[in-house]
Amino acid sequence: MRFVSFVHEERASWGRVEGDGIVDLGAQPGAPVDLKAAIAAGALATPGEGPVIPRADVRLLPVVPNPDKILCVGHNYESHRQETGRARVDHPSIFTRFADTLTGADDPIIRPRVSSDLDYEAELAIIIGRGGRHITQAEAMAHVAGFACFNDASVRDWQWHTRQFIPGKNFPGTAPFGPELVTPDEIADLSAVSVKSVLNGEVMQEATVDYMIFPIPEVIAYVSAFTELRPGDVIATGTPGGVGAKRTPPVWMKPGDRIDVVISGVGTLSSRIVEEA
Amino acid sequence: MRFVSFVHEERASWGRVEGDGIVDLGAQPGAPVDLKAAIAAGALATPGEGPVIPRADVRLLPVVPNPDKILCVGHNYESHRQETGRARVDHPSIFTRFADTLTGADDPIIRPRVSSDLDYEAELAIIIGRGGRHITQAEAMAHVAGFACFNDASVRDWQWHTRQFIPGKNFPGTAPFGPELVTPDEIADLSAVSVKSVLNGEVMQEATVDYMIFPIPEVIAYVSAFTELRPGDVIATGTPGGVGAKRTPPVWMKPGDRIDVVISGVGTLSSRIVEEA
Repeated sequence: MRFVSFVHEERASWGRVEGDGIVDLGAQPGAPVDLKAAIAAGALATPGEGPVIPRADVRLLPVVPNPDKILCVGHNYESHRQETGRARVDHPSIFTRFADTLTGADDPIIRPRVSSDLDYEAELAIIIGRGGRHITQAEAMAHVAGFACFNDASVRDWQWHTRQFIPGKNFPGTAPFGPELVTPDEIADLSAVSVKSVLNGEVMQEATVDYMIFPIPEVIAYVSAFTELRPGDVIATGTPGGVGAKRTPPVWMKPGDRIDVVISGVGTLSSRIVEEA
Repeated sequence: MRFVSFVHEERASWGRVEGDGIVDLGAQPGAPVDLKAAIAAGALATPGEGPVIPRADVRLLPVVPNPDKILCVGHNYESHRQETGRARVDHPSIFTRFADTLTGADDPIIRPRVSSDLDYEAELAIIIGRGGRHITQAEAMAHVAGFACFNDASVRDWQWHTRQFIPGKNFPGTAPFGPELVTPDEIADLSAVSVKSVLNGEVMQEATVDYMIFPIPEVIAYVSAFTELRPGDVIATGTPGGVGAKRTPPVWMKPGDRIDVVISGVGTLSSRIVEEA
């Protein structure tokens, strides 16, 4: 199944995608108030019914608009590790984003006033279903509610002001997330899933999930060793080689550009670039 | 004035410190539900009255238990920069903590199962009053609701797994924060405030705020250039030299130890170390 978070006639809700329509599952009395609450309540397995809204009539929100924690893995594809010149490491490189950096599939990426070094990073995001601490690799996939496309768009000069990536990864409106949460049963072979970015129609990054340096179960086990994961938490699992910063000359996203994150079986997340107002 | 967050007879509340008592300001109908909400409502200037509870009868919570954002500055005192061998930089080094790393003044620091390299970092925390983005240095101090003691206790091996500090800074129960929010009018000369850590009675770190590499207004301006600050947000402003990791041999905090953060005019934040259950 596929789930979305959306605004319809100024009301925020969540629902299940059915063809060109969305079954509004937040509309019923007593329903979980949002997709995070639905995940926490275990409601995705038997989501029930509701009024159907044409997809064209809603504005999609970040697929989980309000995660408690967003954790991101740096340099997790061999091709990207090589282009950044990083040494091999024994542990995944983890940084975080605030939830207000997220933006929905119907909203733009905001290029900040203070920089023009805006880069794309196509990533497969996992959304935590059952929370936990000290999750083992063997149990890890049972904690995944679903997958979504994620664009870890990065303001490179601010990312590299010091060794800590946080500033360049936390400008508001720089992390498109969606359009849909895709449940694990829809993905026949996770290792064969391909993660791609397309800038103005040109493929910039492409790799399959089996090229991850730290596979998803290992990332979940590592992260849950230092922090408790909760339903709706997001882990962006890293980006393939081909980022704009490592090209000669560098390629930065400009207002008017269109960047797509295309993940086989998961979806296409397409964003325009606009200037900060 | 001085404010606290606390639990009294299983009810969470907030209040104003008055001698050995706490004026319970969350008890009145229509009062802000917590200190963050009180700050957002501008209620600290004229906090009103309420029943007085003896301080001994409450358990103090992290002074703001639920900040939206916790930002920390690395290597912000010259003595600590030198001991870590870091080059001078043009920008403050910023990392983040999740709110579930906070612990109150009446609760212990939890040494995790996975490491024994637990270190102290005495810091002056600022608590944001009025939020904002693109705050100028000239306006920055008008956005500060108050000050508190903060212990940015760090799991050093996990901090240094990669260049990103996040894992070692995000173990639950590793960031004592409190005991009180002290409003700026109580601090006559911020530059002369001394920040000290005391481990089992021995002074380990000590410096005055004027030894910060990036003064508080500069930190607020930098941070608000990439993220919106909101009422109740926390900025831990960095630690003086003398951390345990850079001693020969290294000094790690062990179960049973007592670590105090002592900040002149702000307070003493005393924590015991316990093992993760």
